[in-house]
Amino acid sequence: MSKTQNKASNGSVTTIPESEYKVKDMSLADWGRKEIELAEVEMPGLMATREEFGPQKPFQGARIMGSLHMTIQTAVLIETLKELGGDIRWCSCNIFSTQDHAAAAVVAQGSASVFAWKGETVEEYWWCTNRALQWPDGEGPDLIVDDGGDATLLIHEGFKAEEVYAKNKSLPDPSSTENREFRAVLSIIAESIQKDPQRFHRIAQRLVGVSEETTTGVHRLIERAREGSLLFPAINVNDSVTKSKFDNIYGCRHSLPDGIMRATDVMIAGKKAVICGYGDVGKGCAQAMKAAGARTVITEVDPICALQACMEGYEVVLLDDVVSDADIFITTTGNKDIIMASHMAKMKNNAIVGNIGHFDNEIDMAGLEKYPGIKKVNIKPQVDRFVFPDGHGIIMLAEGRLLNLGCATGHPSFVMSCSFTNQAMAQLELWNNRKTGKYQKNVYVLPKKLDEKVARLHLGKLGAKLTKLSPEQAEYIGISQDGPYKPDTYRY
Amino acid sequence: MSKTQNKASNGSVTTIPESEYKVKDMSLADWGRKEIELAEVEMPGLMATREEFGPQKPFQGARIMGSLHMTIQTAVLIETLKELGGDIRWCSCNIFSTQDHAAAAVVAQGSASVFAWKGETVEEYWWCTNRALQWPDGEGPDLIVDDGGDATLLIHEGFKAEEVYAKNKSLPDPSSTENREFRAVLSIIAESIQKDPQRFHRIAQRLVGVSEETTTGVHRLIERAREGSLLFPAINVNDSVTKSKFDNIYGCRHSLPDGIMRATDVMIAGKKAVICGYGDVGKGCAQAMKAAGARTVITEVDPICALQACMEGYEVVLLDDVVSDADIFITTTGNKDIIMASHMAKMKNNAIVGNIGHFDNEIDMAGLEKYPGIKKVNIKPQVDRFVFPDGHGIIMLAEGRLLNLGCATGHPSFVMSCSFTNQAMAQLELWNNRKTGKYQKNVYVLPKKLDEKVARLHLGKLGAKLTKLSPEQAEYIGISQDGPYKPDTYRY
Amino acid sequence: MSKTQNKASNGSVTTIPESEYKVKDMSLADWGRKEIELAEVEMPGLMATREEFGPQKPFQGARIMGSLHMTIQTAVLIETLKELGGDIRWCSCNIFSTQDHAAAAVVAQGSASVFAWKGETVEEYWWCTNRALQWPDGEGPDLIVDDGGDATLLIHEGFKAEEVYAKNKSLPDPSSTENREFRAVLSIIAESIQKDPQRFHRIAQRLVGVSEETTTGVHRLIERAREGSLLFPAINVNDSVTKSKFDNIYGCRHSLPDGIMRATDVMIAGKKAVICGYGDVGKGCAQAMKAAGARTVITEVDPICALQACMEGYEVVLLDDVVSDADIFITTTGNKDIIMASHMAKMKNNAIVGNIGHFDNEIDMAGLEKYPGIKKVNIKPQVDRFVFPDGHGIIMLAEGRLLNLGCATGHPSFVMSCSFTNQAMAQLELWNNRKTGKYQKNVYVLPKKLDEKVARLHLGKLGAKLTKLSPEQAEYIGISQDGPYKPDTYRY
Amino acid sequence: MSKTQNKASNGSVTTIPESEYKVKDMSLADWGRKEIELAEVEMPGLMATREEFGPQKPFQGARIMGSLHMTIQTAVLIETLKELGGDIRWCSCNIFSTQDHAAAAVVAQGSASVFAWKGETVEEYWWCTNRALQWPDGEGPDLIVDDGGDATLLIHEGFKAEEVYAKNKSLPDPSSTENREFRAVLSIIAESIQKDPQRFHRIAQRLVGVSEETTTGVHRLIERAREGSLLFPAINVNDSVTKSKFDNIYGCRHSLPDGIMRATDVMIAGKKAVICGYGDVGKGCAQAMKAAGARTVITEVDPICALQACMEGYEVVLLDDVVSDADIFITTTGNKDIIMASHMAKMKNNAIVGNIGHFDNEIDMAGLEKYPGIKKVNIKPQVDRFVFPDGHGIIMLAEGRLLNLGCATGHPSFVMSCSFTNQAMAQLELWNNRKTGKYQKNVYVLPKKLDEKVARLHLGKLGAKLTKLSPEQAEYIGISQDGPYKPDTYRY
Repeated sequence: MSKTQNKASNGSVTTIPESEYKVKDMSLADWGRKEIELAEVEMPGLMATREEFGPQKPFQGARIMGSLHMTIQTAVLIETLKELGGDIRWCSCNIFSTQDHAAAAVVAQGSASVFAWKGETVEEYWWCTNRALQWPDGEGPDLIVDDGGDATLLIHEGFKAEEVYAKNKSLPDPSSTENREFRAVLSIIAESIQKDPQRFHRIAQRLVGVSEETTTGVHRLIERAREGSLLFPAINVNDSVTKSKFDNIYGCRHSLPDGIMRATDVMIAGKKAVICGYGDVGKGCAQAMKAAGARTVITEVDPICALQACMEGYEVVLLDDVVSDADIFITTTGNKDIIMASHMAKMKNNAIVGNIGHFDNEIDMAGLEKYPGIKKVNIKPQVDRFVFPDGHGIIMLAEGRLLNLGCATGHPSFVMSCSFTNQAMAQLELWNNRKTGKYQKNVYVLPKKLDEKVARLHLGKLGAKLTKLSPEQAEYIGISQDGPYKPDTYRY
Repeated sequence: MSKTQNKASNGSVTTIPESEYKVKDMSLADWGRKEIELAEVEMPGLMATREEFGPQKPFQGARIMGSLHMTIQTAVLIETLKELGGDIRWCSCNIFSTQDHAAAAVVAQGSASVFAWKGETVEEYWWCTNRALQWPDGEGPDLIVDDGGDATLLIHEGFKAEEVYAKNKSLPDPSSTENREFRAVLSIIAESIQKDPQRFHRIAQRLVGVSEETTTGVHRLIERAREGSLLFPAINVNDSVTKSKFDNIYGCRHSLPDGIMRATDVMIAGKKAVICGYGDVGKGCAQAMKAAGARTVITEVDPICALQACMEGYEVVLLDDVVSDADIFITTTGNKDIIMASHMAKMKNNAIVGNIGHFDNEIDMAGLEKYPGIKKVNIKPQVDRFVFPDGHGIIMLAEGRLLNLGCATGHPSFVMSCSFTNQAMAQLELWNNRKTGKYQKNVYVLPKKLDEKVARLHLGKLGAKLTKLSPEQAEYIGISQDGPYKPDTYRY
Repeated sequence: MSKTQNKASNGSVTTIPESEYKVKDMSLADWGRKEIELAEVEMPGLMATREEFGPQKPFQGARIMGSLHMTIQTAVLIETLKELGGDIRWCSCNIFSTQDHAAAAVVAQGSASVFAWKGETVEEYWWCTNRALQWPDGEGPDLIVDDGGDATLLIHEGFKAEEVYAKNKSLPDPSSTENREFRAVLSIIAESIQKDPQRFHRIAQRLVGVSEETTTGVHRLIERAREGSLLFPAINVNDSVTKSKFDNIYGCRHSLPDGIMRATDVMIAGKKAVICGYGDVGKGCAQAMKAAGARTVITEVDPICALQACMEGYEVVLLDDVVSDADIFITTTGNKDIIMASHMAKMKNNAIVGNIGHFDNEIDMAGLEKYPGIKKVNIKPQVDRFVFPDGHGIIMLAEGRLLNLGCATGHPSFVMSCSFTNQAMAQLELWNNRKTGKYQKNVYVLPKKLDEKVARLHLGKLGAKLTKLSPEQAEYIGISQDGPYKPDTYRY
Repeated sequence: MSKTQNKASNGSVTTIPESEYKVKDMSLADWGRKEIELAEVEMPGLMATREEFGPQKPFQGARIMGSLHMTIQTAVLIETLKELGGDIRWCSCNIFSTQDHAAAAVVAQGSASVFAWKGETVEEYWWCTNRALQWPDGEGPDLIVDDGGDATLLIHEGFKAEEVYAKNKSLPDPSSTENREFRAVLSIIAESIQKDPQRFHRIAQRLVGVSEETTTGVHRLIERAREGSLLFPAINVNDSVTKSKFDNIYGCRHSLPDGIMRATDVMIAGKKAVICGYGDVGKGCAQAMKAAGARTVITEVDPICALQACMEGYEVVLLDDVVSDADIFITTTGNKDIIMASHMAKMKNNAIVGNIGHFDNEIDMAGLEKYPGIKKVNIKPQVDRFVFPDGHGIIMLAEGRLLNLGCATGHPSFVMSCSFTNQAMAQLELWNNRKTGKYQKNVYVLPKKLDEKVARLHLGKLGAKLTKLSPEQAEYIGISQDGPYKPDTYRY
């Protein structure tokens, strides 16, 4: 059996047996490794984490499972967790977002067992998630890095189904749901229970905690905590300032035009762009479109965000009022049913439609595909032209899924370094407190001091020099010289 | 005795006896009235408040005292409170910020008793504050609108001194302090106790609450609440999103260049500008300087704010490293000792130095005036050139006090309408709950729904159209269709 | 007779007798001097010109007349010409643009005879122009610095009238014209001819040349040159790159918001602004409005400029389509009849209307003042509210004249230093070539090398460091190492 | 023999025999066709040209040869010329710039004979150029569309060599030059003369003219015209306003970040970017980098351009002073030896270096590749990391050639439509005047009215509405109502 080797800095050699990973093509590993090495230079927070904690191997003995886009940047996170002593398994949280060369490189280095490739089916996706949750001894992880909450969901649904099964031996029935995705989840669970009816209970019991990357995942966790059904502690990484005010804003400001340009080569200058939503993602997107010379307008439901848009010089409009005028439509809301098939039916020929919010129901893909007489012409991967019976077409990016991941390479390394350093901090917090009782079955944010630390680790790379408060100044405003510098309610 | 007349919309006529106001020149009233009428069109939040609540006169019977820059915009606030039934006395919270035509117009209309003029001495300032706190029957207000907390301070210091006096008949001794400002406070209190040793106790007892406008004032209130010495409920208006994220950012973005241009006529384009601090005020200032074509750099102590500055393309530097290169220096920190005399000694000839943060100790005015061999040449009101012995000079704006108020006319009406509508809401909240016990001797922020309402009232004027959530969308993200749209921790 | 003294650097003392100047108030001279000294630091091109040429006194024996806004910046130009040996008389080229403290300071220093004050009548204006053209010996200047061409016009009209008079003894008849301005011109000329029927002929004959500051003046000169009626050589300073691409764009970018803010204190952010015209002035204005957070739209007749506006993200609209929506309207076209009374009748209440193009006929002031039922309410100097019969009003800035000069202080010193260093260069060119025949009765632009020199003189102040071409690089692109660096057709 | 078919709008069917084209892969034709159809919607100027002139087939009988990047956009140009009746042969003007799917689609449609593929050798490149110049009957074109002047060069060099050969039968000697490129040219010519010693003379005689796309090509033409050696008329398309002020500025503003992002995925925000040169290309590049959040500095030799950079808020520096600090270096000068190997030796690790000016000698590629101990690591196509002996590397884009063409897809269609509509106009001008004598052996620019027409054709797509001058307004400023609206010297 061929094996891959880990020549990590600790000198040890790890090999991953072929049964313990599934990626597209191991021959991409060299290219992936070169890109990982470039990315490391752009991810100073993770590299500083390796330097500070690597020698102590704080994760010695910790099993870490990740469900998060298997990209080059994630590879740097994985290898940071590895460097700190972790034993790691990974899957992607999106069927399209895996970069196959990144996955191959991680496996080749022996850094983690990876189950991910670009273009999984929904069934394959959940198979991967399940495999990543199961160590060779059949048991689960101590820690989870989650993005969107799918790993967490599988455990909770599995746990629930095991309880039902324990009561009355009934198994979950995949055919009970129309939803293809949920059907796949139920199949996996049914199979699991038949083999091992307490597996998810043991997983839940073992788990020290999860750190969650996104708004959507956090939303689900808070719901569970409210209901009292959350099975383990959770740290909300999404609401670290160095995540939400950086990744969301500046990541999207970079990756929205990147995605549009790679997908369409269309000149943005002079066009009319509609950004649906003016939250953090929308703010970054609008800034990017305006900077590129587009006449940019906003739709919003929240009057405060709408007023912010006004102050920045955007017109705040109703989608219905501009649908026939605009050239580019981008959803950033995190809600559903924002751009409907009926809207697209009224758009100009070759209007570009894309989503950088969350799920592919922000744009009514279902309605579009069922639109009477519609024709779908594939231009190139992740770029389709839907032609309406009247002859006009619209250009749909990434099938309505996150266009920056689908049509470009997602957020750039530097901003992901902020997010992922928070992840590393969160994992350390959970693991170091596994016996202190600090974290209960609830949802927590990282203390502001760690948030400030993450920022601090990223300043040197940019040549920024931080002013130091004098003791007198610190006293004058009633804070410590070393921070935290702001009250928890501060909005940045 | 001549009297001024109020022909307010309610048809009633109020007259203010001459003993009950002190302003510079009543002949400015007509000009002031014209400017107030223009400002009303720019303050839709306050006008909508008049329309919604005016007919019910909810403040019937309420005595409202204000200590807040007596400007045209404040006049619109005062007359809104009046329209809602209030009985009002007012003073300014800054010796330079009164617009004399605004003060005169308010008196002429019979809207409020005003004690304020541009260029008060420190002693006059506290005399005005004290007069504004005392109704003709000798008693105090039911409600206070405070800015910086000076009215609140006078009451708390008075209360404390009365307690000492009650114990041992000792009066506060003004000569016990070097601080000219505090000496004036003690004189006022000593005199008050001699006339009426329980006056501040009665004031404190009667008070339903205070609404505070600024960070500094809120900071003082929170300190008192922590110590348990706060004498009445307080609403922190400063931290309403529609205040801090609008007034601070967009107000300063407007009024910083306005102040610099009126004071110096200097071309901003091509110059190097240093913005000390990248909080909300700093963000607005930096954006304005960059937009005007200045090479703009930032100094910061907080790594998160520093990283935000980096992401927006600013260089983050140490003041010492740029002090000899830059042309414009602006402090926005809310801290002290930011630009010292020793810095100014190293600046280029005719470097411009100004403060838009808070007190005049952000810039070391004391050190500058005592600098050996320094000469002060007044160019025009609020613009001085300090010439160092080596012959180079620096241009100091507004004597180190808030340059936007000193050299221009402060924030424009529209953004003050956001802040002041919050004030009006806060006053209503306090008064309407005067008997419900909702507000204890603590510091509160307004509920998010009121914050959103304030924003909503300002959208129409800008032609913004708000999208309405469908019931399905509201349910999907787990909120009410009518808001609040975000969790309390949301950062905007 | 009291006299003013010139303590110029050359140590000589000049005194100007009271009959040889007319300004508003000599007591403003000290303030003016302080502002002139500040401006000198901002006008490196003029100061470098003093340094380079001052010692040689190249203008020894030259009489220089100027007709150009008598501001602080112009004072620095005047005193530069003086330092180079000139004998100078000056008037303003606009009835509102004189800064009285500048005029007083120039006279007090003995730098020039000045005939100018803020708020001249049209008759006074032409009296001033005529006085500035007449030295105590009754004769005229050797050189003219003109802005808009009024001094040139007076001489040409006078010359023409003298020819008619020489033929048939008929004098110009002021009552022959409805135009108040031209009537004043004819009166002056008629009076002059009666006293001295060959005066304008002698003036024309003596004149070495004129350097003209503006598009309008250049346009008039080119017309005369085409007709063959131009009486002396002219240098078109307006079309130096360091004039038209700096003063027009960056000067207006600075002074448009300055003027609006001083005049109205209105928040620009969130408002809808219409910039009529997207030439250099319009480009600067649009950039300023956008930067201040206004939704900015453009009207244009030239498709190329319109396409530029599109590429910068502006919407290009018809005025009729936005007249009821917008809040701020600015004309920058240099044409007439851009905003008509009928447009203003349809505007929103308190829409702001101003002109930064050229004459007050860009906005239909005549039509507005005659509008049936209109009421004019003066808010403060240079700010009027015109109230239409339906009750809505518009805010007119500077009576439709240049709002940056009327409501603020015009362009800032630094950019005027570019323009005025071109003026100084042009005057030197004309004077140094007075006997070479290089300049005939035609219109010339300065050689590119001088243009580049003007730019070079302004870089040091801004800390800019210029890269030097290597000989190999210069040869590679076929130019001299020291410039000129571009062909004459280059557009910058 | 297999043939390709042209089903052009005129219904005729053209087939191109296999011997008359050479492209990489005809199976890419379908994809190419889909992209061409999308591009047509973005190229309104060319489509309007088809509509206006297509029916008349003005190019009936004209043989048109093109040497210009064989991209999707060029395909739309080619098919426009075809639609107007032309008989067309094409090659690329850059060894890397061909888009193979575009080339295939053009051949498949029978639109032109194409000799071009991505990644030609230098010898192949000149073989292609030569083949494109030779119609099946052995004769040359009537018209040339040139970009950089290589087709023109080949003809002039061939002509010269034929003259030498006619004199003394000596053939050009490829081994006489070190320059690989020129060696290939001489080989081609030597071979041609041996077959047909008058071929280039007949080509020159037949040629009606050339229209040239770029600064470099125009520079060469002007040199030839100055020397009197130009063999046929030339129209300088580069200096049409709708070319140089659009393609150069806005094209690069779009395609610079596009190229950097596709090549490196590096976050631009927060980085320090050096733009070498602030001409039109530099202006667009700097604007893009600043907009993306980079701290952007400029190097310049021309003081006027340097002062423009200052006014826009850029620091103007010497490369030597920032070479160790900056993260991104871009050359835009059109000159040589801008960034030397010695500079790159001092850069930060993984600094990005790219050229968007013209030739690959702007960056010292030769010096870099010969640097002692240097290692070249290919990351992916067109992205190399050069590792210096001290271990630091730099990321070189597109081997120092135009990075927007090498790493992205060049300028977007819309802006190329402006440039190419000028090309179509120029070709029509030349052809329509082939017998009028209007164009001699000299270099011409298109009349401003055609320039304005090109702009006009692009406004509708962007929803821009053009204001119409009234007859009175036109007269007032002394122009025709329909333009041209500006003097030839106007700089836009």
